[in-house]
Amino acid sequence: MALHHLDPDAFINTLGPHEPTLHVQPGDTIVFHTLDAFGYDRAQVQRGETPNPQSGPVWVNGAEPGDALEVDIVRLTPSRDRGWTRYPLATNVVDPDTVITFPQRASADWAVDVATWTTRLVDPPMALQNLVLPLDPMIGCFGVAPLGGEAISTSTPGPHGGNMDWRGFRAGTKVWFPVGQPGALLAAGDGHARQGDGEISGTGIEISMEMELRVNVRKGWAISWPRGVTSDGKEIFTVGNARPLDQALQHATSEMLTWLMADYGYDLASASHLMGQTVGYDIGNVYNPAYTVVCRMQREIIERG
Amino acid sequence: MALHHLDPDAFINTLGPHEPTLHVQPGDTIVFHTLDAFGYDRAQVQRGETPNPQSGPVWVNGAEPGDALEVDIVRLTPSRDRGWTRYPLATNVVDPDTVITFPQRASADWAVDVATWTTRLVDPPMALQNLVLPLDPMIGCFGVAPLGGEAISTSTPGPHGGNMDWRGFRAGTKVWFPVGQPGALLAAGDGHARQGDGEISGTGIEISMEMELRVNVRKGWAISWPRGVTSDGKEIFTVGNARPLDQALQHATSEMLTWLMADYGYDLASASHLMGQTVGYDIGNVYNPAYTVVCRMQREIIERG
Amino acid sequence: MALHHLDPDAFINTLGPHEPTLHVQPGDTIVFHTLDAFGYDRAQVQRGETPNPQSGPVWVNGAEPGDALEVDIVRLTPSRDRGWTRYPLATNVVDPDTVITFPQRASADWAVDVATWTTRLVDPPMALQNLVLPLDPMIGCFGVAPLGGEAISTSTPGPHGGNMDWRGFRAGTKVWFPVGQPGALLAAGDGHARQGDGEISGTGIEISMEMELRVNVRKGWAISWPRGVTSDGKEIFTVGNARPLDQALQHATSEMLTWLMADYGYDLASASHLMGQTVGYDIGNVYNPAYTVVCRMQREIIERG
Amino acid sequence: MALHHLDPDAFINTLGPHEPTLHVQPGDTIVFHTLDAFGYDRAQVQRGETPNPQSGPVWVNGAEPGDALEVDIVRLTPSRDRGWTRYPLATNVVDPDTVITFPQRASADWAVDVATWTTRLVDPPMALQNLVLPLDPMIGCFGVAPLGGEAISTSTPGPHGGNMDWRGFRAGTKVWFPVGQPGALLAAGDGHARQGDGEISGTGIEISMEMELRVNVRKGWAISWPRGVTSDGKEIFTVGNARPLDQALQHATSEMLTWLMADYGYDLASASHLMGQTVGYDIGNVYNPAYTVVCRMQREIIERG
Repeated sequence: MALHHLDPDAFINTLGPHEPTLHVQPGDTIVFHTLDAFGYDRAQVQRGETPNPQSGPVWVNGAEPGDALEVDIVRLTPSRDRGWTRYPLATNVVDPDTVITFPQRASADWAVDVATWTTRLVDPPMALQNLVLPLDPMIGCFGVAPLGGEAISTSTPGPHGGNMDWRGFRAGTKVWFPVGQPGALLAAGDGHARQGDGEISGTGIEISMEMELRVNVRKGWAISWPRGVTSDGKEIFTVGNARPLDQALQHATSEMLTWLMADYGYDLASASHLMGQTVGYDIGNVYNPAYTVVCRMQREIIERG
Repeated sequence: MALHHLDPDAFINTLGPHEPTLHVQPGDTIVFHTLDAFGYDRAQVQRGETPNPQSGPVWVNGAEPGDALEVDIVRLTPSRDRGWTRYPLATNVVDPDTVITFPQRASADWAVDVATWTTRLVDPPMALQNLVLPLDPMIGCFGVAPLGGEAISTSTPGPHGGNMDWRGFRAGTKVWFPVGQPGALLAAGDGHARQGDGEISGTGIEISMEMELRVNVRKGWAISWPRGVTSDGKEIFTVGNARPLDQALQHATSEMLTWLMADYGYDLASASHLMGQTVGYDIGNVYNPAYTVVCRMQREIIERG
Repeated sequence: MALHHLDPDAFINTLGPHEPTLHVQPGDTIVFHTLDAFGYDRAQVQRGETPNPQSGPVWVNGAEPGDALEVDIVRLTPSRDRGWTRYPLATNVVDPDTVITFPQRASADWAVDVATWTTRLVDPPMALQNLVLPLDPMIGCFGVAPLGGEAISTSTPGPHGGNMDWRGFRAGTKVWFPVGQPGALLAAGDGHARQGDGEISGTGIEISMEMELRVNVRKGWAISWPRGVTSDGKEIFTVGNARPLDQALQHATSEMLTWLMADYGYDLASASHLMGQTVGYDIGNVYNPAYTVVCRMQREIIERG
Repeated sequence: MALHHLDPDAFINTLGPHEPTLHVQPGDTIVFHTLDAFGYDRAQVQRGETPNPQSGPVWVNGAEPGDALEVDIVRLTPSRDRGWTRYPLATNVVDPDTVITFPQRASADWAVDVATWTTRLVDPPMALQNLVLPLDPMIGCFGVAPLGGEAISTSTPGPHGGNMDWRGFRAGTKVWFPVGQPGALLAAGDGHARQGDGEISGTGIEISMEMELRVNVRKGWAISWPRGVTSDGKEIFTVGNARPLDQALQHATSEMLTWLMADYGYDLASASHLMGQTVGYDIGNVYNPAYTVVCRMQREIIERG
């Protein structure tokens, strides 16, 4: 149950079978010191490259393909007082004809105050002089090495996790990743001080962060997509990553159906009734090469049988 | 401010330039007595045809193309004690290879108890013997006649509304539709006693209903997609209907951007900052020929300027 | 076997259950005098409205839902010496980020010379001074009234045909449409002097036309999507219309599979072998609300058994 | 101008920064001895793993990111007399409801006769007793190491090429790949004795092959997607790989537009006119995680200026 600090000198831009920078035991906790999406650290020094440089990978003893790596998000703390966003909205989230009217994209800085747990634009346009938003720190990109020896860009989510940009990856959330390589090879980065659904401006409030994650290995739990429990403990969820969103939704829905049938013991009809009348969906990343849909079910309903 | 009851003998399966069955004034309230999705009424007599037979259309005096029809959902009451669903999940919401294992779809009945505001399966499989779910009545399909003389099937949503199957269309919600024909020609039907996101079993709990709707005309408000205010009054929303979901999201996002800029006075950069860091999305219908995405923004944030 | 001329004063912008402007017998031939996509006739007088005003509908005696309307494209002749196109490329056929660099769209005129069967820009940019292209006249939009009482915009293709913008709809091609209303209610318009695949500039060379079509009724042939025989007589084809292209392809492929099994007598395995190793696809319309994919099979292969 | 034989003992299932198995000079020719998609060699011995094991990678001296690797497909010869296919059609190329009726997929063997240049089923169903098809050998999967250190599964195409399954990759075709890593790291495999468009049964006629490829380096030609010249020398083409097909088409179209403007010197309006009225599209792979669209332009038209 050791506590490790991973404050690396080198960073990775793909999730894949890289040489681990740290070896840990199941039950250990790691504080990942992470760069922002463009590679700037807590001192605003650029130490990594875009996109979304990751700290890691971390070898978790005993994790093998066919297992699931369990990750508890214990704490997410912005490690500097400045974040940044891009604007206007991404060209792929509005109607194509609207894009003709768009200027080239630019950046804006946000003051991030951990003491008051708020953020505001540093140099706001007139209309946003009084805008103060609460922090809601989340992990933009984390995951394990994929199956089959792939090394996937940290701009792209997949079965292994990656750049999912879902607001639900906040402190208190538990997530399982399908282990694709021995040691699982967990990496994390791309912290957001907060974000709307979909990361539709192409960024959250991008910032360096301390991400405190506790890892465990669930042996012989051969999942196909990330699964988890929401931060309030009230819902289980599955994640599908693909394009179009329709396919991401199919992946997340199929994974939930499998989970309810294989682990909770529901037959197809019962699982269909439960999902049909109570399921919830969230939209994660709709900015990057693959998109993210999260499928949620209430534990109170599915666990009472 | 009259109260009308619309309890028709004939029903429509397209939203279009049909002869109105009722003429009302702005400010009037209409109780639409609606059939279920297969055309069965409160006495379980089939009086309409699938898909989603609608009560109406209602002519609203003074509504012209270029205006928005305002509809307040005052009350939604199931009008019988039996609903039904289909199972297993729809073939288009799971991975294609999963479908090979699916049987042909079948129907199940649900007891709907307005007194206790709950529902349960009439003949539950073993695993769901104890399942009792709260009611959360919603409108599956409602809308106006489209622009350009189109008559669109009540299975398909579009700019005019239609079969959006969003859980948010519950009592207390306000919605505006873009008027496409003189009199707007509002129709409603396809009530659900409750439903999960997406209508992924192809049905909510389908039931006949009393839908009490109050109408008004917002002159000269030329919207492109449905807009509204959520039932808790805390959010405004826009609706996009298209396939794939990506395009529905583009429509909803563009409509929200237009709304923030044209009505709330935000410049593009400010609107992008607000949307990028605070927007929420819901997934409506993912069963039918077009899909539905709802884009939400918190009024507390956008109205404080 | 009469020859009719349909040179109407009024035009329709939806395909639906409209009052017929002409009644014909199976075996008759109709010369549809058609407007261009913006409603301009052979004398450059605007007599109809955008989008794609249609001549018709024509009632074909004996056609009933459950039948197929057979249409032979006998002759397509541009009826004036000027066509027009739009430029640059449509915003939805290029990468979203490319659109930022695009100007607003503009129009260009083309000289259309039926004597030499060629076309050239009237006021060409320097780089295209010597560009002369052969004519290849085609029908942009034609079809029948849809099933279920729908009236669908002539900008949108569907099971009933409509705005498919496939180059293969040239003289010599035979097509069958699924009859959705008594009399079939055939309409035609939106002629193109020529066009690339996909109508990716949003137009072909738009022009008024004489479209000579011979109609027949194939009783009791309940098809779901347009089917046909190519102008060289060598291939049969099916058409799927939907978004995204993936779904249009699914529709066209399923319809071909059904055709091979129900009419040619192939079992599923044999039909799959034939399609898998010899099928061809064309991309039709990728500009409008629904897209078009054509699935082709060689008659020489499938008819020799 | 050396001729190399690459008949390896080990194979790769990702295209990425792997250790090269052969070093060659620009202008050299390599005969890649390739396994079939399941890893069986010319003697029907399994020597590699699914999916699509590749021979290579080959280091081409002087190739650097920012260059294009030119590959001429000199010769494609099946190296055994048996190929195989799968059936029925893939579940993702037909309407979802059709899939309910499908059995689990099975395999069939094909006799491949290089002397007569034909193929036939070894154990044909009754309906296909007389089916004899001409060979049309093609490369299912080939490409270079991607940019950014990615290693992409040989089931998935991308900017680097990969599993594109386009019939046009036959002998005589020239293709350029964007170099993503020093030495380019070319690999090839997954030969098909023939195939229909789209690889819609999930396979071509899968077979081991000799693929004779000549390589060159086009220095400083920074392309974003594969480009090439068709085997008849009459067309140039670009390839887009993504899902849905709509996005693959956007990539291919944008790449062609860039090519016409940057290399052929057309302005945006002229390039749009040419593409709009003369472009052709082919559908490649529609079976795998990403799909393929090919955009073609006639050299006779674009080169006469």
